[in-house]
Amino acid sequence: MTARPKKSLGIVPGAGAARMVEDIVGCKWSLTVLALVRDGVNRPGAMEHAVPGLSAKVLNERLRKLQRFGILAKTSYPEVPPRVEYALTPFGRKFVGVLDEVETLERELTTGSAPRPRSS
Amino acid sequence: MTARPKKSLGIVPGAGAARMVEDIVGCKWSLTVLALVRDGVNRPGAMEHAVPGLSAKVLNERLRKLQRFGILAKTSYPEVPPRVEYALTPFGRKFVGVLDEVETLERELTTGSAPRPRSS
Repeated sequence: MTARPKKSLGIVPGAGAARMVEDIVGCKWSLTVLALVRDGVNRPGAMEHAVPGLSAKVLNERLRKLQRFGILAKTSYPEVPPRVEYALTPFGRKFVGVLDEVETLERELTTGSAPRPRSS
Repeated sequence: MTARPKKSLGIVPGAGAARMVEDIVGCKWSLTVLALVRDGVNRPGAMEHAVPGLSAKVLNERLRKLQRFGILAKTSYPEVPPRVEYALTPFGRKFVGVLDEVETLERELTTGSAPRPRSS
């Protein structure tokens, strides 16, 4: 068991955080963008160049969503030409940590160290 | 950042683990059953008595689902009267750890330390 105190698991049904996790995990491009930002690729132009098949339209949609979720923060620098950078917020860093944990669970499911779930 | 190696976040879109997290988090009774088992309430009869409003039918459905997901393991003892106990599997313990993390995220969302997400 964990060192965490018991008596938790009181998550509100339909909790927003779980929906956010599922939304992001279910979206290949959101995961891609988070991996880029985490690896220090912070400018939209650099992101586009780093990933074949990632269009500016899709990239901007995902960046907006991740900002709305409070996962990414946007900083605009008043330079010529203007510079924009994205970074993980403190909440975003925790969120990415949970995605890592979900990835670990997923690996256990697919390598068969846990029984394969069936739909209910 | 975490001490975790970078270059993860390669979760398969529609990953089963994230769906499982959302399924369980979205189900009040599943969370209740997990909290009971974690607190050492392992027998179905004791679970029913511990939670007003939890019917045998709903309890058995949730126990079956949690078993199917590989989160709980059932042990039957050939006694008279027969005794049945449920326990977290090793996978289940990790899964509950992730639910705790999601709960922490949820608390940050609802206390407003992160921007409130809007639907996209």
